[in-house]
Amino acid sequence: MSLEEDVDELSSNYGDVTLNELQSTADPKAGKWREAVEGKEWTDVSDLVEELAGSEVLIRGRVHTYRQVFMILRQSGSTVQCVAKQSEETNVSVNMLKYLKQLPCESFVDVIGLVVLPKDPIKGATQQVEIHMRKVYCVNKALTKLPLSVEDAARSEEEIEKSFQPKKPGGKAKPFSRVNQDTRLNHRVLDIRTPANQAIFRIQCGVENFFREKLLSKDFVNIHTPKLMAGSSEGGSAVFRLEYKGQSACLAQSPQLHKQMAICGDLRRVFEIGPVFRAEDSFTHRHLCEFVGLDVEMEIQKHYSEIMDLVDELFVFIFTSLNEKCKKELEAVGKQYPFEPLKFLEKTLRLTFEEGIQMLKEAGVEVDPLGDLNTESERKLGQLVLEKYNTEFYILHRYPAAVRPFYTMPCADNPLYSNSFDVFIRGEEIISGAQRVHIPEVLEKRAGECGIDVKTISTYIDSFRYGAPPHGGFGVGLERVVMLFCALNNIRKTSLFPRDPQRLTP
Amino acid sequence: MSLEEDVDELSSNYGDVTLNELQSTADPKAGKWREAVEGKEWTDVSDLVEELAGSEVLIRGRVHTYRQVFMILRQSGSTVQCVAKQSEETNVSVNMLKYLKQLPCESFVDVIGLVVLPKDPIKGATQQVEIHMRKVYCVNKALTKLPLSVEDAARSEEEIEKSFQPKKPGGKAKPFSRVNQDTRLNHRVLDIRTPANQAIFRIQCGVENFFREKLLSKDFVNIHTPKLMAGSSEGGSAVFRLEYKGQSACLAQSPQLHKQMAICGDLRRVFEIGPVFRAEDSFTHRHLCEFVGLDVEMEIQKHYSEIMDLVDELFVFIFTSLNEKCKKELEAVGKQYPFEPLKFLEKTLRLTFEEGIQMLKEAGVEVDPLGDLNTESERKLGQLVLEKYNTEFYILHRYPAAVRPFYTMPCADNPLYSNSFDVFIRGEEIISGAQRVHIPEVLEKRAGECGIDVKTISTYIDSFRYGAPPHGGFGVGLERVVMLFCALNNIRKTSLFPRDPQRLTP
Repeated sequence: MSLEEDVDELSSNYGDVTLNELQSTADPKAGKWREAVEGKEWTDVSDLVEELAGSEVLIRGRVHTYRQVFMILRQSGSTVQCVAKQSEETNVSVNMLKYLKQLPCESFVDVIGLVVLPKDPIKGATQQVEIHMRKVYCVNKALTKLPLSVEDAARSEEEIEKSFQPKKPGGKAKPFSRVNQDTRLNHRVLDIRTPANQAIFRIQCGVENFFREKLLSKDFVNIHTPKLMAGSSEGGSAVFRLEYKGQSACLAQSPQLHKQMAICGDLRRVFEIGPVFRAEDSFTHRHLCEFVGLDVEMEIQKHYSEIMDLVDELFVFIFTSLNEKCKKELEAVGKQYPFEPLKFLEKTLRLTFEEGIQMLKEAGVEVDPLGDLNTESERKLGQLVLEKYNTEFYILHRYPAAVRPFYTMPCADNPLYSNSFDVFIRGEEIISGAQRVHIPEVLEKRAGECGIDVKTISTYIDSFRYGAPPHGGFGVGLERVVMLFCALNNIRKTSLFPRDPQRLTP
Repeated sequence: MSLEEDVDELSSNYGDVTLNELQSTADPKAGKWREAVEGKEWTDVSDLVEELAGSEVLIRGRVHTYRQVFMILRQSGSTVQCVAKQSEETNVSVNMLKYLKQLPCESFVDVIGLVVLPKDPIKGATQQVEIHMRKVYCVNKALTKLPLSVEDAARSEEEIEKSFQPKKPGGKAKPFSRVNQDTRLNHRVLDIRTPANQAIFRIQCGVENFFREKLLSKDFVNIHTPKLMAGSSEGGSAVFRLEYKGQSACLAQSPQLHKQMAICGDLRRVFEIGPVFRAEDSFTHRHLCEFVGLDVEMEIQKHYSEIMDLVDELFVFIFTSLNEKCKKELEAVGKQYPFEPLKFLEKTLRLTFEEGIQMLKEAGVEVDPLGDLNTESERKLGQLVLEKYNTEFYILHRYPAAVRPFYTMPCADNPLYSNSFDVFIRGEEIISGAQRVHIPEVLEKRAGECGIDVKTISTYIDSFRYGAPPHGGFGVGLERVVMLFCALNNIRKTSLFPRDPQRLTP
């Protein structure tokens, strides 16, 4: 029996939603979908719980998979098994089955059906109820051939590895496809749909929420500084230049100068969350050309430890809140990318740079006592700290002055060192901070010593001539916090649409 | 008696803080300031209340003014009167008086003194207690000659006008200086210090907080989309172009394309707060080349009114919260720039574009029924709506399709109109929103009709080929919301460091 031959009395129970209906028609008689949903409310897939058994629901989601009469409907990170059962209660026609079968994966459908408790626990879906479909309408059809399958993209490396072994001895292996990173990023709108990615961007949102919550509770003001600047931001080659109405301009490499100017403008304690642009040719797992900076700047009363006190309280709060309030999301990430929870102390460990150098020395690693640590030494020190203090989160302060920017305040007792710090998660730097020089004469001297033409930063230096309080602050990369908290191996996984030296799309 | 001659036994009670002390020394004997503050906590000026009378406090602030023995100390928007009284309790020496006298305005000082209840109410300060100074140290000295006086910059137009009249008949007028806008913006770090500006940026922070709070409570996810894009964003000439690692790139004119792609990526309901770049040559009171966009995008179930429902709930919440929680700040703004509180309804008024045109017509204003409203007609309609409905906040929807972007969904009943809306405050547009076309074939057709080369936006259009839900959203300018809520006359007043076609600094 072909579709044409079949005069289906139940044809109003399924079909494609028409363009007219999708254009927000208010007419309840505009089409069969419009009639079917009239007066009904949609239930979220994540809200499909056992208490709803026996009731009829209207749900919307994507066709995740369809096998025999079982359709897995997916909505964000949640999935539910929908069954096309030909019974008196459901009235599913042969043509409705045919209709269901031809729906491409990832298409959006509206399902009206009965919530039923299954006999056996459901393995292939997050929800523990089954929907016996009565009506199904395709809201939007996906292409039949997709550049990647969300099912494939959602598998853990372990599952893929396993699939290369035959299930039974002597049998044939059915290896799963591995979706490589470039394919994922090229088709990011498909890639983002995996449960791990759905979770990652909710965790990122959490980091930002907890960051703001803590700072707002401490009277910080959220500011927005310009990204378009005259001159060359903090200088250096890693700057994007452009023409601005006949002037030469650049994109801010950080809100450094302006957040300090906000302090000179009496805002006292400020933070900013915004894009930061670095034209660096860094092809590493941890560098992007555009990332989200979490920046803080604050007056200090007498010691730069006040800034480290804030870092301590703030990040312990963020980590604790993530563990408490993003449990489901952290689980979803761990399912595809297994990781151990971050080890951190209630009171964050602080070591001086000299102490760090000493620890490395005792472990046989010689580093320049007045130079910077390279990535390898940072990792090694992270290991040593973990072994000795049982923490993967710590502050290293009093860095050599020579490796910090010109505006860093030198130490009172030794000008070779500075009132600055870096903070590490799992052996990688995520935060850089310091007390700043707020005395214009000292600032000019330091700029000169660092080979910076004072004229190019005169607006900045002048800001301190009208009275400036002692102050300091720090900057954090949002993507790095999420990457390192979840021990992910690449920062591109925590940027929604990453930008690196080779990637400017999508 | 010169300063040199005077061997002041009380010289440890005043003086400049040394560089060494400012470099975060931990040594309590490093200097007289460091000794004086040892073990003491700073009290905020805003916390100086009558209950503290009789106790000694340590406060930090700027020298706002110094006349005779009265110093007004300012900290953000709060001021307190500090008196240099030579008494047994305070031990103020002649040299300390001399020291105080030579301190330039805007210098930062630490004052240790006794909290005293004044006999008469204090007019020239926000705090109703007086500080009898015991010790005073200059933490940072300002230049003696400043490019503008904060006292001048803080005056209302009314006060300035008044000063042109003599106080007594026949007397001589002592006109105050008027600080013009360019002087203010050139020296923004001084300008920001006025009580009105201190309040404006706290109100701006409030708008953002309430915006986020409401959206997060409705399961929206905060996202960050790239500002660096290949091609030309939404097209048009108002785009900043730059070179990106050998490719031609531009700065995003809005997060439009990427926020829609986030919806295609199943994030379901997203918002973004971030910079938006427009290379327009608009020299108006309401245009900037860089501003902060509040962007929202959401799945819709069946009608674009769902988006307007959100706008309604969201903005009524923001306005109500501002009135409740930013009372002090709104008062501070009103003191310098008097304004009437915004009139808005509990349930926001919605008019169709056709109804708006009709109201204008009845008032004698003829406008093209399928064209856009110009600024003048918008203002006129605002007046008419205020008179008829007693609200300065309303939604105008079903705009002619011809005046909306290609990705706007046409109306189901008439393709000359579209499922779009603008929202107005006090006769000026602040929000633009719409249901989007989520069907790739329709999108291609619309782009073609609007003269856009489909090839240049293929990534965008392709996003909808992998299954896309009906959706829509809107965008708001943060600076405009603050400007119009407080009825300020220029958007430069609500941007911390504004960027317009002629201004790229500070």
